[in-house]
This record gives sequence, C-alpha cells and structure tokens, in this order.
Amino acid sequence: MFSNVNLYNSDILFYSFLLKQNATAKRLVYLQSDSIRITLKMGKEITNRSEDYSQWYIDLVKKADLAENSDVRGCMVIKPYGFSIWEKMQTALDKMFKDTGHTNAYFPLFIPKSFLAKEASHVDGFAKECAIVTHYRLKNSPDGNGVIVDPEAKLEEELIVRPTSETVIWNSYKKWIQSYRDLPILINQWCNVVRWEMRTRLFLRTAEFLWQEGHTAHSTADEAIKETRQMLDVYADFVENFMAVPVIKGKKSEGEKFPGAIDTYCIEALMQDGKALQAGTSHFLGQNFAKAFDVQFTNKEGKLELVWGTSWGVSTRLMGALIMAHSDDDGLILPPKLAPIHVVIVPIFKTDEELNKISAKVDVISASLRKLGYSVKFDNRDNYKPGFKFAEHEMRGVPVRIAIGPRDLENGTVEVARRDTKEKQVMKMDDVVTEIPKLLDAIQGNIYQKALKFRNDNLRKIDSYDEFKKALDETPGFILAHWDGTKETEAAIKEETKATIRCIPLDAPEENGKCIYSGKPSNRRVLFARAY
Amino acid sequence: MFSNVNLYNSDILFYSFLLKQNATAKRLVYLQSDSIRITLKMGKEITNRSEDYSQWYIDLVKKADLAENSDVRGCMVIKPYGFSIWEKMQTALDKMFKDTGHTNAYFPLFIPKSFLAKEASHVDGFAKECAIVTHYRLKNSPDGNGVIVDPEAKLEEELIVRPTSETVIWNSYKKWIQSYRDLPILINQWCNVVRWEMRTRLFLRTAEFLWQEGHTAHSTADEAIKETRQMLDVYADFVENFMAVPVIKGKKSEGEKFPGAIDTYCIEALMQDGKALQAGTSHFLGQNFAKAFDVQFTNKEGKLELVWGTSWGVSTRLMGALIMAHSDDDGLILPPKLAPIHVVIVPIFKTDEELNKISAKVDVISASLRKLGYSVKFDNRDNYKPGFKFAEHEMRGVPVRIAIGPRDLENGTVEVARRDTKEKQVMKMDDVVTEIPKLLDAIQGNIYQKALKFRNDNLRKIDSYDEFKKALDETPGFILAHWDGTKETEAAIKEETKATIRCIPLDAPEENGKCIYSGKPSNRRVLFARAY
Repeated sequence: MFSNVNLYNSDILFYSFLLKQNATAKRLVYLQSDSIRITLKMGKEITNRSEDYSQWYIDLVKKADLAENSDVRGCMVIKPYGFSIWEKMQTALDKMFKDTGHTNAYFPLFIPKSFLAKEASHVDGFAKECAIVTHYRLKNSPDGNGVIVDPEAKLEEELIVRPTSETVIWNSYKKWIQSYRDLPILINQWCNVVRWEMRTRLFLRTAEFLWQEGHTAHSTADEAIKETRQMLDVYADFVENFMAVPVIKGKKSEGEKFPGAIDTYCIEALMQDGKALQAGTSHFLGQNFAKAFDVQFTNKEGKLELVWGTSWGVSTRLMGALIMAHSDDDGLILPPKLAPIHVVIVPIFKTDEELNKISAKVDVISASLRKLGYSVKFDNRDNYKPGFKFAEHEMRGVPVRIAIGPRDLENGTVEVARRDTKEKQVMKMDDVVTEIPKLLDAIQGNIYQKALKFRNDNLRKIDSYDEFKKALDETPGFILAHWDGTKETEAAIKEETKATIRCIPLDAPEENGKCIYSGKPSNRRVLFARAY
Repeated sequence: MFSNVNLYNSDILFYSFLLKQNATAKRLVYLQSDSIRITLKMGKEITNRSEDYSQWYIDLVKKADLAENSDVRGCMVIKPYGFSIWEKMQTALDKMFKDTGHTNAYFPLFIPKSFLAKEASHVDGFAKECAIVTHYRLKNSPDGNGVIVDPEAKLEEELIVRPTSETVIWNSYKKWIQSYRDLPILINQWCNVVRWEMRTRLFLRTAEFLWQEGHTAHSTADEAIKETRQMLDVYADFVENFMAVPVIKGKKSEGEKFPGAIDTYCIEALMQDGKALQAGTSHFLGQNFAKAFDVQFTNKEGKLELVWGTSWGVSTRLMGALIMAHSDDDGLILPPKLAPIHVVIVPIFKTDEELNKISAKVDVISASLRKLGYSVKFDNRDNYKPGFKFAEHEMRGVPVRIAIGPRDLENGTVEVARRDTKEKQVMKMDDVVTEIPKLLDAIQGNIYQKALKFRNDNLRKIDSYDEFKKALDETPGFILAHWDGTKETEAAIKEETKATIRCIPLDAPEENGKCIYSGKPSNRRVLFARAY
C-alpha cells in the first residue's frame, strides 16, 4: 500500500484515517516538504473519466464540495464553495446585463393555473411536470403526531411553482404598457424555478434550480429580434471569455424551440465525453405572449398594436458545463475569472519558528496580490500535511498554488504550480506580483484553447447515416450533417440514435447536400449530437 | 385650478393630460425654467401622511415605482426601481456577512412536511399558514379547456414551501458535521420564503418575500451566543448607518421569541406614525435543532456532543421601514448610501442649441462624479418639462438634483437642491465635484439625525396603565414601562391595547418599579409599542 515512503507515526495514523474514508484507495498523492518528496498510494478520491464519466462527474461535484443531493426529492444543496463559483458567474453576467441596459426586478414565485393555459403552445409544449400548491394551511394531526394538511384550506385555484415566468410577467406588463413611450421594458430576474424532473443530476438537471430570466417588451419586431440576438451574444461572450468554454451559436429547429417562441436561439458547448450541453437560450417571442395577455400599446401614429417580446435565460446548469468542460481525474479545473480563490499559498514547515518566518513573507505576497484584485488563501492549517493540502486544492481547482519552505526563504524563491497543466516552476519572490497575474491570464487562455481544440477535434462533417450512427457510438462529438428540414426526419433520427439537432448554426454556409436520413435535398448542415 | 402661471399651449395640453391621470388633483408642483418659475396646482400624487398614513404609504410605494400587488394572492411584484434599492441593501449586507466570515449557499425551496414536526416548539409556534405542494403534474382538461391537476400525480409526502429553513438546513448539517474540526459552519442564504398571510401590505407583510437567513453551527454555547449578538450588531450597524434609521437593540420576551429559539434578539425601529417595526432578528437556538435532527460532533476530548446553533434574518420588510422612516408628502426620501441614483441633472432649455451646450457641461460634471463612485442620471428627456421631472425625482427620492440652464452656463453655476430639506443653493460649477460628496454625506447624516430626534421625542417612560393607553391612542410611539415578567400580563396588555413588548432593551438599566398592569414588582423597563 505504501511505497517510497518515510513516514512518522502521526503520518501513518493520518493516512490510515484517509484510507478508511476512501475504501477504494488507489490514487497517488504527492506529499511535499521542503527537502523531501514522499509519494504514496492513497485514497483515490474520484473515479477516472475513462472508467465512468458519469460517476467521475458525480464524484467530483461531491469531493470538490460543490453540491449534494438533499433529502428533498430532486432538489440539490449548493454548498458554499460551489455557490461561490455561481456568485462569480452571477456577478459577471449581471454586469453584462446592466451594461446592455437591463435592470433587475422580482415577480411572484407562484403562477395561477389559468395563466399557464393562456398561451396555447406554451401550455401544450411545456412540460406539465411541475410543483402544484393546492392548500395553504397545516393543522395538528388528530392523533397527536406531527401535522397534516388542513382539508378546509384548499385553494380555489391551484398555484404552480414557476417553471418559467413568461405568463406572470406578461400579466404585469399589461398594466405597465400603454404607449410606445413605455417601451422598451428591459427586465431581468434572478430566481429559483421548479420543473418536476424524474431523473435528476446535480446542476445538470434538478427539480429546483437557480437561474436568471430576462423578459423584454418592444414596440417593433425588429427591435425584439435585435435584443434576442444581442443576449445570445452576451451569453456566448460570457461562456467563452469567463467560463473558457467555446460555443456554437445557432437557432433551434421547430421541434426543439421554446413553447411559445417564434424562434429560439441557443449556444451549444461540447463536454469531454462528446455530449453536447445547451448552455443558454434566447427566445424571440413575437407577439405571442402579448396576444395571450392582451398587452397592447399606442404607437406613434396613435394606433393600438400588440407588444413584441423576448425572453432569455441561463441557469445553474452552467456549473455542470464548467465542471465537465475542463476538469480532470484529480478534480476541478477552474478558469481564473470564475475561481473563488486564485492563489493558494501552502507553507512547508516543521517548526513554529519556520512557520512564523514563512507567514511574514506570505503576508507581503498576499497583500500585493490582493491589491491587484486577486483572491489569495494562506492555508496555514497545522493539522494537515502539505501533500493533503495540495490534493485538496487541486480537487477544488484553485488555478495557482504557491509553496514556500525554509529553503525558499533562504533563496528568495517560491515554488509555483499551475492547476491546468500541473507544471511547476521556481519563481523569485520579488517576481510573484508581476508574474502571477500573467500566469493567471495564461491559464485562462490555455483552458479555453484546450477546450477549443477538443471541440474542433470532435466536430465532424458526416454524410451517411451509417457513419453518423457509428460516430455517435464510437467517437461521440458534434456532427454537422444535412437534414431535410422536416419534423418527421428529426424525430426519427432522435428515436433511432438519441441524437438531436442541437441547432442550425448561425454561421453555417449554404451548401447543397442530401439529408443523411431521407436523402432529400438540403441546403445547409445542421449540428447533431447526443446531449445532456 | 392654475395660478401664477404663464402657460404655452403645449404646456396646457401636457398638464391637462397629467390632471386626467390624477383625478384628485391638488398638489403644487414647481415648474422651473432658467429665467421663470411657474407654480401651478396640479395632480396631487399621493395622500398626505396626516390624512391617512396607511394610504400615504401605499400611494408612495406605487407612485415611486417601488412595488405593486400582483394578481397572485399576497405576492408582490418588486419593480425595477424598488428592486435596485433592495440590491443596494443586499450588496451592503452581503459584504458585512462576508467580512464576519460567512459564506453563501443554497438549500431547497421545499421542506418535507415531516421535517417541520421534528422540532416541537418550532411546529407548535410557527404559523401553520403556508403553501403546500401536494401534486407534481398537470394534464390537459378533458373538456379541452386549459389544464387540471392530475389526480394520479399525488405526492406521497406533501412539501411545504419554506417559511424559514432551519429544518432543511439542520438536516444537511447532520451530514456535514462529525468533528469539532468541522465547526463552526457560518452560512447565509439569500432566497424567497412564503408565509400565507391573510392581510398583506406591500413590503411589510406579503405571502412571498425575499430575505436572507443565516444559519450557523458551533461547538460551544458561548460561541453561538457571541455569533447571535454579533449578527444583531451587524444588523443594527446596517440599519443605522446605511438606512439611517435608529434602532433599539433588545431581547424578545418568551411570548414573542422565535419558535425553536432559546433567545431571540431584535432591533426595533420607530416609524413616523409612532408604530414600531421589527427590522431584524437574531436567534440563539441552543441545541434545539441539533437535537431534533440528531446533529452531534466529537469534541476535542473525543466525546459526542450536540451542536449549538443560531439563525438570523432580515427581509424586504426593510424596504417598508426605509420608506416609512424618512419619506414625506412629496414622496420617497432615500439615504444616499442606498439611493440607486445619487444625483439627477435636469437641463433647463428652450432650444436644441441650448441643450447641446448644457449637455457638454453635464458630461464633464457627470464623469467627475462617476469617477468618485456616484451614480448620476442626466434626465434629458425632451417630452417632459423640468417641473414634471423635478416632481418625479422628488417622488423617487433622488438625494440631490442639479438644474442647469443657459444663464448658469453664462455664470459658471448650477442650482443644487437637496431632497431631504428641499433647500436650494447656487453652486459654482467648478465646486460640484468637491461639494456634492460633502452634501451627500450631510444628507445621510441629516436623515439619520432627524429620525433619531423623532424617535427620541417619541420614546416615553410611562408608569400608569391609564397613561399608557392614552399615549398609545394620542401620542403613539415607544413606551418604556415596567412589566412583571409574566406571559399573562403580556397577553392581557396586548389583548386590551394592541401594544406588544417589542423587546427588553439590552441597555436597560436596573430600576425598581411596579408593573403598569399588575402592580407587581419589576426591576427594569421594557419597550412597548403598537407594531407593524
């Protein structure tokens, strides 16, 4: 079990404890002290991606302390570390929304059942699995055990916990909009929504999730379409430049669009297992919800017109995309722009005196980095060994680790390790404040480039249905293929292969070809994949 | 209807339009242009406080565009302007929570019914009016009209929409806590909660509201009590220094404490109508929830102990306190620290050329103020007159208004008006960047001092029950009176006078006296008031 090791008694106790906690012990952990490095086989913390990608994901979400299932069916608990990443996402997105003229507001959690029925395709197309409030009071159980629902407190009309808020918001917009002068309305809401999913997976698909939903109202179709496209661009910008995940922008097919929308635009990302993940959607609603809720305005010519609408959203699902796009078998890899901690500093010491000397230097380094806006953690816990700390911060995806030992103090150096490539370098202490920012930028860029290369390597043009099916099983990824444009073909391919049309890419060039399924003519390729 | 007025035709049309919109037209609006001032009686926008305080509040919330009732029973819509004030509150509080070591997380919206029953006094004492989810699916109505609840999709155990999250959070803490090394846990959550209130009032009492709830776990009672008191201090600091509302810190009586708490601490503020408003609470939970959810930890001596807990919260109710504490018959008065817009600049112009010249100056002033971190709005709308704009920004509580006309350009001056005192002064344009920050600080201070004076003027020591009742009806405010410490007396006074014990002030000196109700001995005064 142990190899190449000189261990103290306390170490053995400590590793035994770890091993007990990780019965499937396998993984190598590097225990570093200033002068010696000890390698020992210890608790393999998470499943390898190559063994079981799904299990790797679940293990990682738990071990990196991001989220866990609650005892409430389908609802997750977002733990502090996971939530701090979500907060970074929110902050960046919120600024982008405000920079494009939007303001936040808040609308009710509950939607009267009758509201849902007002927009025909919305109620038809939207999943009917939702949480329904039917009563408003509990009472003490007659048998003295706990509480029961008071049958006398039945609501006249049931309330639906919002699965999305178009209906309740357009019902308000009716009161707010009279004239073209009241338009546009550019509102966003950060909130929780509930869709009663039967099979849930942390972040990717949960009954309750957190999201933002933008809902805008305009006096012309043109302006609403521009808004729809603008927000798609905002999402793509955020996902590529903050999350470091490349995306393909496109339009959904009729079969995949949002119920109630005229057009749904989306950004699609590729995960490391070759499955696609829809990272954000932006809908041009036309006048559908205005019609359903009778929202009209007097135009400049004094005539009544129906208002044009858009809606757009991203959710905690992005956390799933972030995790799956970059991470490895040692844990999370975070792009610095979304990392709650940019730099962790681990002291290598044997005595309190050594720790004190190191701490004095660390204070200077930390202060200078914090001044530049970086988040720095000094991990001076005395009950864990450096190797344990290294593994823990790797698991949590801290982009840069700095180790400082007594010899470093003598030499005026530090050891710097980057999480993405695992490369280490010895750096002069004086250079830290100029070099670390560059390194963090380099990491942000490298993570994106790596994901982009993976995406491009796994984006194939395929022209036969046999090859298409083979690729899906053997080399999954994005497939650009011809499609005849019919719902029937789309449904048949989905039924037979579980692959869906992710989008009709916005930049797809005109190209004559034949539908891989029906052989009928097609004039551009669409993007297929199996998806989350 | 009009007086002292020289009106152009377009003005008359404009005011007619306004008057039509405000049938109960009465109020004076000052219409200012660079050379002339026009005063005319026009639409009284909100009820006077002295006429009907409740109606004044409702009018103000609506006219200042803060919030409105939705068509969903008891649920409000927080409109963009109102929400931007709440966001400022959140930002300030969130920083204070993080500065005291807390992190945010997110727990489920739903609570299994059985969880509520686990802590006996929690379920007994907590209002049983709540939203209960009993089904998880809708289906198309057989008659083709809309949707109905699918009777086959009944939940085995009903879910309660969280009225507060102690139960669901302590159920998680059970999994997170094994050793003293896992403690303390210092978590906060920003979320929505639902309590099925029968009589609702915007911000003050709504079925759904937004809040934050802190939930901490500790290894000793002492540490938990310190945390409870620390968060009370954080709340008091926030309410006094950001909201500019003075508070009295105290402990709730047994009858008024949180169900499940050992001790509830609170801050109590006085509104302009002499009614008290509980602005925040912080609970020492003892080991009650740890016991209910079996949350134990191994202490340093290796023995199992129950975990100690606290919880603390403030809500969108603070918006109600903010509005009611400061505002006047012309609308909202906002402390600069929470004002979404610090300075509004209104150009006074007749021609486009004048507007262009003014705009050039405004750009310089705005940029210099923004550089200092102030939010500046240039209200250059060409479809509203200055007087209308003045009234609108007064209604919305913008702390400082700057007016600039052609004569100001000649003289190198601006007219500066402060919202709190309505005082105006002519200021040199060059002084704006140094004087406006001072003015905003002065406004923040003045608003607080005014509220403090009001509170102190309406804080009375009373020693007889007759006087007590008379004061409640004739000069409502805070009353410091002796109480015999019994539940019975507390209940009798509440029943007879509608006044409650707001708190036992923390700084109440020992003082021998006789209970105003029972005549029994008492050793300190407690704080009574009628309350929101």
